[in-house]
Amino acid sequence: MVTTQHHVERKLAAILAADVVGYSRLMGSDELGTLQALKAHRRELVDPTISAHGGVIVKTTGDGLLVSFASAVDGVACAVAIQRGMIQRNVELAEDRRFLLRIGINVGDIILDQNDMFGDGVNIAARLETLSEPGGLCISHTVRDQIGEKLPLAFVDLGEQMVKNIAKPLHIFTLSLLRRCFFRPAL
Amino acid sequence: MVTTQHHVERKLAAILAADVVGYSRLMGSDELGTLQALKAHRRELVDPTISAHGGVIVKTTGDGLLVSFASAVDGVACAVAIQRGMIQRNVELAEDRRFLLRIGINVGDIILDQNDMFGDGVNIAARLETLSEPGGLCISHTVRDQIGEKLPLAFVDLGEQMVKNIAKPLHIFTLSLLRRCFFRPAL
Repeated sequence: MVTTQHHVERKLAAILAADVVGYSRLMGSDELGTLQALKAHRRELVDPTISAHGGVIVKTTGDGLLVSFASAVDGVACAVAIQRGMIQRNVELAEDRRFLLRIGINVGDIILDQNDMFGDGVNIAARLETLSEPGGLCISHTVRDQIGEKLPLAFVDLGEQMVKNIAKPLHIFTLSLLRRCFFRPAL
Repeated sequence: MVTTQHHVERKLAAILAADVVGYSRLMGSDELGTLQALKAHRRELVDPTISAHGGVIVKTTGDGLLVSFASAVDGVACAVAIQRGMIQRNVELAEDRRFLLRIGINVGDIILDQNDMFGDGVNIAARLETLSEPGGLCISHTVRDQIGEKLPLAFVDLGEQMVKNIAKPLHIFTLSLLRRCFFRPAL
């Protein structure tokens, strides 16, 4: 009989990793102001949007967030809602106070252990995040497959990319949301 | 804001579809005996193995089973345990009383509705089942990706295949378990 080792609890999940672009620079120029702004974005936009899409915040690390969703479709819809909400909030702020997020999303058969999650799938989500455009998102081929035509989003196929500490190349897709504000006055 | 339509509940799941090879023929030659054998296999092997791997039987149709698992690794381990158990049980039976199962497994972002599940991912699992060798299994590329090196199984890459009623070709992998009994006296 084939069994999973050590009877670990496994679960398919969409894993979303997010962080703030230039967080160290922002903190360097205004530590308290940046922290207050981050907390306001979390409280007023990010956390409620995650809840509304059924996401669970698994870990926070300074400016970073790791979130799990039962559905890849819900995870991507949530990421787009956060990025669009952030663009809207930035309109009201001076340029040097604006926050932009990078977001990476992957689907993984992850290991659950004491409210934390582990596995290749989590590491890959974190790598995808570093490949995301500021204000956009970067998803794995598996996420692209799962969302199919279920969401009206125009992802760009960037093909296979080698990334740090991941043995196999990742086939990635990106979505730009920020670029649109230069062409369309209202989002 | 991008939302999923009609607020449907979505969930990533590994979907296992199974049926009995030549069930109509078996029923034609011995209706009552076949039904009793099927019920015994379910009660003594199939259902307990599904429970042990965290699977949930979503639907049964005569000789067919549709099962969901939270993890793709657990779903594949379960399928292998069932097929190996069935080979073992067949050893004690006359050749014309032997049961063989076909099993297909896919990962899908499925829609849950009143204890039933829907979506492309379910239809694809049913197609994969028809492509399975008797006594073996057939999995999608997505399942292969998720199990990685986590189970000691030698899948064969059959590349892309066109299947009935599915628009895009499916990249499939198969596992033969039955063949081994001709070479190895003990499983």
